Amino acid sequence: MTEVRLRGAYATVRGPGLEDEVAVEEPLEIRVDGAPLAVTMRTPGHDEELALGFLYGEGLIDGPRAAAPPADLAGNTIEVAGPLLRAPDARSFFTSSSCGVCGKGALEEVAVHAEPLADGPVLERALLAALPDRLRQPTFARTGGLHATGLFDPAGELLCVREDVGRHNAMDKVVGWALRERRVPLHPAVLCVSGRLSFELVQKAAVAGAPVLVGVGAPTSLAVTLADDRGLTLCGFARGGRVNVYTRPDRVS
Amino acid sequence: MTEVRLRGAYATVRGPGLEDEVAVEEPLEIRVDGAPLAVTMRTPGHDEELALGFLYGEGLIDGPRAAAPPADLAGNTIEVAGPLLRAPDARSFFTSSSCGVCGKGALEEVAVHAEPLADGPVLERALLAALPDRLRQPTFARTGGLHATGLFDPAGELLCVREDVGRHNAMDKVVGWALRERRVPLHPAVLCVSGRLSFELVQKAAVAGAPVLVGVGAPTSLAVTLADDRGLTLCGFARGGRVNVYTRPDRVS
Repeated sequence: MTEVRLRGAYATVRGPGLEDEVAVEEPLEIRVDGAPLAVTMRTPGHDEELALGFLYGEGLIDGPRAAAPPADLAGNTIEVAGPLLRAPDARSFFTSSSCGVCGKGALEEVAVHAEPLADGPVLERALLAALPDRLRQPTFARTGGLHATGLFDPAGELLCVREDVGRHNAMDKVVGWALRERRVPLHPAVLCVSGRLSFELVQKAAVAGAPVLVGVGAPTSLAVTLADDRGLTLCGFARGGRVNVYTRPDRVS
Repeated sequence: MTEVRLRGAYATVRGPGLEDEVAVEEPLEIRVDGAPLAVTMRTPGHDEELALGFLYGEGLIDGPRAAAPPADLAGNTIEVAGPLLRAPDARSFFTSSSCGVCGKGALEEVAVHAEPLADGPVLERALLAALPDRLRQPTFARTGGLHATGLFDPAGELLCVREDVGRHNAMDKVVGWALRERRVPLHPAVLCVSGRLSFELVQKAAVAGAPVLVGVGAPTSLAVTLADDRGLTLCGFARGGRVNVYTRPDRVS
């Protein structure tokens, strides 16, 4: 028997010959006006932001809403006040609950609508390459098991950082924070993620109006295609003072 | 404008001042008897295996099925012969199309049923620690952007390895391969993944009957809890000749 004790965002694990700390992964059910909408596996903390960011990324809300755990359930449920901008049909509804695209019925429907991005800001390449080092990740240091998303102003100052076992969740939390702070659209702020750059992350960034998305890891083909289409500057492999600029290099000096 | 040219599992990217190769990410719609069942974002290749492994992990099939792209659609659709073991309701149906748990309506439903695992095999710790080095990853070497899952026999010989932008897809492809090879349940073979160990991966491994799951990265709390519950030996941080054994260390000598 191995014992797992949850302590917020991390858990202590004790088994024969082992003592370790790991990142917590728990389901979160997002409800709107009492009706279950989606379940995502996430690291507890900032659940209200996660729910708001998720709903915004899906085009279901256009601003902050009241969100709170219901009084009769502990921990893994979050209640958001409706109404939604549109009725979530079964397909679109399940879309991003954890991965951004699952459940889309038609292939052409995988991309959510996003407004065109304004030009600028123009950032120095060295600054973009250095952003990942500025992602403070307290629970990652403890567990080695979390993704992080950070929001930076054009001068490279960190505005908000969130961690999660799911990279999409970390970005949803940052977008949810920005919604509450009335900072959406995010332009001219810059998003930076600790991992790879998937289609899903580009979509969330574009919907939230971020002009620049930087990642420590590699982009996928569809991430590059979507970023190009939406006019978002996509930067990958930001490490060791270097960065690859895949799209819209006019924002990089 | 940035040009992205798909060349199978990788794509060439050409933009101002940039020439690179990235991993391909494209949607795949899984259909059963003509009806759309799920869409996942995946790296093209071994799509039949992906569809079969996905359906098996969901408890919707219990053996190999005929699977092929329909004649009238190129590329991103796969047709599987029914019938399914049960009707996929909207909830369970969308569950794992890309992430393993999204769309589950009730929190208690996140875990799919799996048969108890038999005891054994017993493997040397050094062998387990060395498995990630034996994951051949041709497209990762080219793009730096893919996850891999490998299936090994108890002597550490590689039986099958698959790559994908989605870690869940890479495992589904391996399970689909094993289904066709009549090697499911996987016992006493060992699964090894190139990344972190989520709840979802433990669930897929347990449903496929793998007694041991090894990962290069960190496990989550729920991954440890589920592995402990199902009697699966979960090993994390397998690198540099070392490995952490989180559950069922009786299979490690």
